[in-house]
Amino acid sequence: MSVVYTNIRRPDRAVIDGLAGHGVATVHEAQGRIGLLAPTMRPIFAGARIGGAAVTVSLPPADNFMIHIAVEQCQKGDILVVAPTSYSDAGYFGELLACSLVARGVVGLVIDAGVRDVRDLTAMRFPVWSKVIYAQGTVKETLGSVNVPVICAGAAVEAGDAVIADDDGVCIVPRKRATEVLTACEARVSKEASVRERLSRGELGIDIYGMREKAKSRGLVYREQPPGG
Amino acid sequence: MSVVYTNIRRPDRAVIDGLAGHGVATVHEAQGRIGLLAPTMRPIFAGARIGGAAVTVSLPPADNFMIHIAVEQCQKGDILVVAPTSYSDAGYFGELLACSLVARGVVGLVIDAGVRDVRDLTAMRFPVWSKVIYAQGTVKETLGSVNVPVICAGAAVEAGDAVIADDDGVCIVPRKRATEVLTACEARVSKEASVRERLSRGELGIDIYGMREKAKSRGLVYREQPPGG
Amino acid sequence: MSVVYTNIRRPDRAVIDGLAGHGVATVHEAQGRIGLLAPTMRPIFAGARIGGAAVTVSLPPADNFMIHIAVEQCQKGDILVVAPTSYSDAGYFGELLACSLVARGVVGLVIDAGVRDVRDLTAMRFPVWSKVIYAQGTVKETLGSVNVPVICAGAAVEAGDAVIADDDGVCIVPRKRATEVLTACEARVSKEASVRERLSRGELGIDIYGMREKAKSRGLVYREQPPGG
Amino acid sequence: MSVVYTNIRRPDRAVIDGLAGHGVATVHEAQGRIGLLAPTMRPIFAGARIGGAAVTVSLPPADNFMIHIAVEQCQKGDILVVAPTSYSDAGYFGELLACSLVARGVVGLVIDAGVRDVRDLTAMRFPVWSKVIYAQGTVKETLGSVNVPVICAGAAVEAGDAVIADDDGVCIVPRKRATEVLTACEARVSKEASVRERLSRGELGIDIYGMREKAKSRGLVYREQPPGG
Amino acid sequence: MSVVYTNIRRPDRAVIDGLAGHGVATVHEAQGRIGLLAPTMRPIFAGARIGGAAVTVSLPPADNFMIHIAVEQCQKGDILVVAPTSYSDAGYFGELLACSLVARGVVGLVIDAGVRDVRDLTAMRFPVWSKVIYAQGTVKETLGSVNVPVICAGAAVEAGDAVIADDDGVCIVPRKRATEVLTACEARVSKEASVRERLSRGELGIDIYGMREKAKSRGLVYREQPPGG
Amino acid sequence: MSVVYTNIRRPDRAVIDGLAGHGVATVHEAQGRIGLLAPTMRPIFAGARIGGAAVTVSLPPADNFMIHIAVEQCQKGDILVVAPTSYSDAGYFGELLACSLVARGVVGLVIDAGVRDVRDLTAMRFPVWSKVIYAQGTVKETLGSVNVPVICAGAAVEAGDAVIADDDGVCIVPRKRATEVLTACEARVSKEASVRERLSRGELGIDIYGMREKAKSRGLVYREQPPGG
Repeated sequence: MSVVYTNIRRPDRAVIDGLAGHGVATVHEAQGRIGLLAPTMRPIFAGARIGGAAVTVSLPPADNFMIHIAVEQCQKGDILVVAPTSYSDAGYFGELLACSLVARGVVGLVIDAGVRDVRDLTAMRFPVWSKVIYAQGTVKETLGSVNVPVICAGAAVEAGDAVIADDDGVCIVPRKRATEVLTACEARVSKEASVRERLSRGELGIDIYGMREKAKSRGLVYREQPPGG
Repeated sequence: MSVVYTNIRRPDRAVIDGLAGHGVATVHEAQGRIGLLAPTMRPIFAGARIGGAAVTVSLPPADNFMIHIAVEQCQKGDILVVAPTSYSDAGYFGELLACSLVARGVVGLVIDAGVRDVRDLTAMRFPVWSKVIYAQGTVKETLGSVNVPVICAGAAVEAGDAVIADDDGVCIVPRKRATEVLTACEARVSKEASVRERLSRGELGIDIYGMREKAKSRGLVYREQPPGG
Repeated sequence: MSVVYTNIRRPDRAVIDGLAGHGVATVHEAQGRIGLLAPTMRPIFAGARIGGAAVTVSLPPADNFMIHIAVEQCQKGDILVVAPTSYSDAGYFGELLACSLVARGVVGLVIDAGVRDVRDLTAMRFPVWSKVIYAQGTVKETLGSVNVPVICAGAAVEAGDAVIADDDGVCIVPRKRATEVLTACEARVSKEASVRERLSRGELGIDIYGMREKAKSRGLVYREQPPGG
Repeated sequence: MSVVYTNIRRPDRAVIDGLAGHGVATVHEAQGRIGLLAPTMRPIFAGARIGGAAVTVSLPPADNFMIHIAVEQCQKGDILVVAPTSYSDAGYFGELLACSLVARGVVGLVIDAGVRDVRDLTAMRFPVWSKVIYAQGTVKETLGSVNVPVICAGAAVEAGDAVIADDDGVCIVPRKRATEVLTACEARVSKEASVRERLSRGELGIDIYGMREKAKSRGLVYREQPPGG
Repeated sequence: MSVVYTNIRRPDRAVIDGLAGHGVATVHEAQGRIGLLAPTMRPIFAGARIGGAAVTVSLPPADNFMIHIAVEQCQKGDILVVAPTSYSDAGYFGELLACSLVARGVVGLVIDAGVRDVRDLTAMRFPVWSKVIYAQGTVKETLGSVNVPVICAGAAVEAGDAVIADDDGVCIVPRKRATEVLTACEARVSKEASVRERLSRGELGIDIYGMREKAKSRGLVYREQPPGG
Repeated sequence: MSVVYTNIRRPDRAVIDGLAGHGVATVHEAQGRIGLLAPTMRPIFAGARIGGAAVTVSLPPADNFMIHIAVEQCQKGDILVVAPTSYSDAGYFGELLACSLVARGVVGLVIDAGVRDVRDLTAMRFPVWSKVIYAQGTVKETLGSVNVPVICAGAAVEAGDAVIADDDGVCIVPRKRATEVLTACEARVSKEASVRERLSRGELGIDIYGMREKAKSRGLVYREQPPGG
């Protein structure tokens, strides 16, 4: 059955912004090293770092009918998350759809497929994380669903989950865990600040983290490089 | 048999320039969603958008003898299109060959293999679309052919076809269809202008394109997100 | 057995700097078209060109214990070369480790796996050549070895080998051959200068390199493009 | 947190057997074209067709500690479903673990990673669907979880889901839907029987399925092949 | 435009059978090392060796409408050649369609996409060369064309070309060249028979082919393995 | 420089036979989990298990000149190990070369490239481990070297190393370590026999290997599956 769920619940905006400020690597660590999309998902230009609530789209290969349907469900601050039901590298999305999303305040697109018009999208600074850049067009024939749970690039995403994306990739935080993960991020960042300072002064991580003893107990030996060679 | 066809016919320069101005995605749509090279073909730097007449090269893996032979067949405004007879990631092409092509007015290279010296090529602003960047050298031992039909990254290319390349990839327009495709591009762009304006004002594509009725007739349903979750 | 070799021998710094100045493509040619890592190894930002002595790390998939151990073995001008014992795309390395390496004067990282915090690393201008960018974290549980011979992205690397890396990829020069390869680079560059000048003036490579006769003797024929088509 | 859930609920055995009898393609269609693992999952030998209840394992790359832990949770008729937290091609599983699973009545293994001893496993007729065959060993150092929800080769799997696997791949049926999907399979198979008979007698699918009119209305034209060529 | 060309010309059956008898490697060599599909095309079971006239299908990703349309164009001895317009791994074809093709005397399928029901197809001994085995279903919504020129797995195929397929892959022989290529195959096979006999008796290819002198003139040297190591 | 080293040293035949009897997975474990070729290397037919001394060939992409040269260096019981200097999927080797190797007593081929005539090779039971099966021919133009160190599918191989290959892949044992590794294999096999017996009786690996305590100390918890779901 093809269905569009409306009126989805979203995380608090301030929480999303907090998560986005920490970036993907920190959020991923803070929530227990889960939630990452596959590293095949790459930004079309460097330097963007965004957060938003997921509007999810499940659709067929090379058919973008449901992206057009999904636009209406988007609000300011959302991120569209698009997952084909089988492999597709078609260019589902280009500059016209971006104009439409921008008009609704959508902050970016995550798509496990192709995107096109990247020159225009870059000029608009509309960030997209995709598997591929490809001008190949799609049809508008077959239904799918909006705001159902999807698996996008190997990660489970539900409508209203927080999506964080930057140059390191894309990470999903379940809506109900968003506040708790933000707190964990803040704790992690505080701790890292002092480590960073010590490392920058030349202290070694193996001393700061107490790894020497662990290495020794597991049998690590040190030797002079033998002569010759 | 190894053969070099000389005196190939080329499309009108103004037509090529017109196509290049529209870019790959528009040209591809305007000619009926055909003619694209595979998305494995990526530019070595962002922002280039070129058009030219194809000088085609069929050659063996890791052997660039025929690129040297092909240079002589190139004219101002051409694009060299290089297709190995089986998979190769070798770096067939670098800065010296680029100097030679620039001297003849060639505007770019499309190669279903590797390229090297990309730092120099970027500094020269000589655009290359390739499958890979790799310093691995080639030999100059075995013949191939120039200006024969080739299949490059999954697309058929004949000598003198129009080649359009930008950040979205590479599209081939058969020489005899170039004028007709340009006309179709212009029609498409005119139509898109008004759609863009409406989308940017917040109108929805599903209304502009009349997709609501189609979605309904095919069974799409709208539901409130259920509580909980 | 897990072992760390200390006090490794390194090439002369001036020789490394000389090699780095020539870049990967020239060094690779000058030493006989060997020593390249696979083209899967890509820089996280464009434009870096570095040379250094290899500190090698052999370690398990998704476990960066040994990178922490290896930091202590690094000196000013070194490059860390990290090779997992089986495929891994995990993000072994990020900004904190970079701070630590920078404090020791390390000039870059080459890793046949993943890296993260690329936004920060780019801001620091700490260059990394990796297979993938991925935020996925690692554990610190299992030993490996430092300064043993490794195979990294298909190339054999020994501790103290010269590592040259730029936008074309990464090339290894065995420590004992470094001076000889530098001499060969210089000879090559001298020879190329006059060729470049002749090519830029419009002379053809097939004349400069004497390829016309070779092509003819192997059976290359020239023909006018037939009418029609 | 690392956790092992015990006493999981499983579908009715007769339902699983019914699903297995229909095979992957039919089950997948009957439940609405969802639930398939990626086509990278291939059987180590042809001809096996099994069904079982999923015992799920989430574990680190190249570390099979949790497979050993999971064995204890397995019952007669189960299938072990193993998903690393990031890419691994290591050989997590071989003949000794298969002996252990066989002793508990487990009917097969589905693993988004590597397997080894395939000669022995084939001789034992213990079926495995894996991404790769690789002798590379693993360590036993780092915890994961058993019977938590996992994403295996792109499909969501929960403990106690029905797993159906044959030469076409692997399909997951959520535990609560198993009976309903079996009913849908039976309906589908009945319908197909008469179609098969008509097709085998030479009737055309375009007539049986009423596709001629649809094709015509969408603009399909028939033409004689032009002369020449 | 979507078009079905009818009444295509086919090569002489005896010629096709002759080519098929020689197999893919010989046919490919005999016609000048061209015409191969990419090595991604693999048979679903070992040992089949077939030849037939191509009925070509160009169709969208994950939509098999046009395969149903194409069946009607097939005659005894044909091979269906299916090429999606962009990447698809969907399972376009299964046992029901095979029943339909068998009823018309079609000898096999070549598809640059996915196939399913391979257990049944193997039992029927209906050979298929495909990129992938995948149960993922398709829709029947969007038109394409039948008996137009296609590029299938990197090779150009026209309706009525001879298709030869065996365990080495798939090779296309243009219809008009089929007789000439058969003659070349026969010449090649005759010549190989005596070489085979001499090699089997222990003569060396470097002597039979006169390679010693060529090797020497290009600088090959022979040395005793140095002591040590 | 192109060189052929003659009169290479080989391991004792009985030692090679002993290693081959244990198979790849055991040999790999016994020598410390090193020496494996990448899992891309697959046998052309199932069930072969061979051992031999390596005759190594370094050669250019799509050029099999040096295989012909190498045949003369082969003795009874050898395995030819072929490594192109950059990626090639060309079919370097077919039935005629196999006849020649069989005449000299060579027991198999390991090639990080393509092979063809697999139907004939299978009929002859001449085993080959290759990256791909592909009919694409090669030229015989450019030299390489025989019995130099090569990197084949990611593993370092020297002339005279022991090569073990079976359905799990290919493993290299350095010549000087062959006897020691055989001893380690025997120890491992003895130990496994009793473990196998205990596992087959239903004992758990976590008890046999003492993993319960380790799991507990690292924080593993057991919980009842919660109701619902």
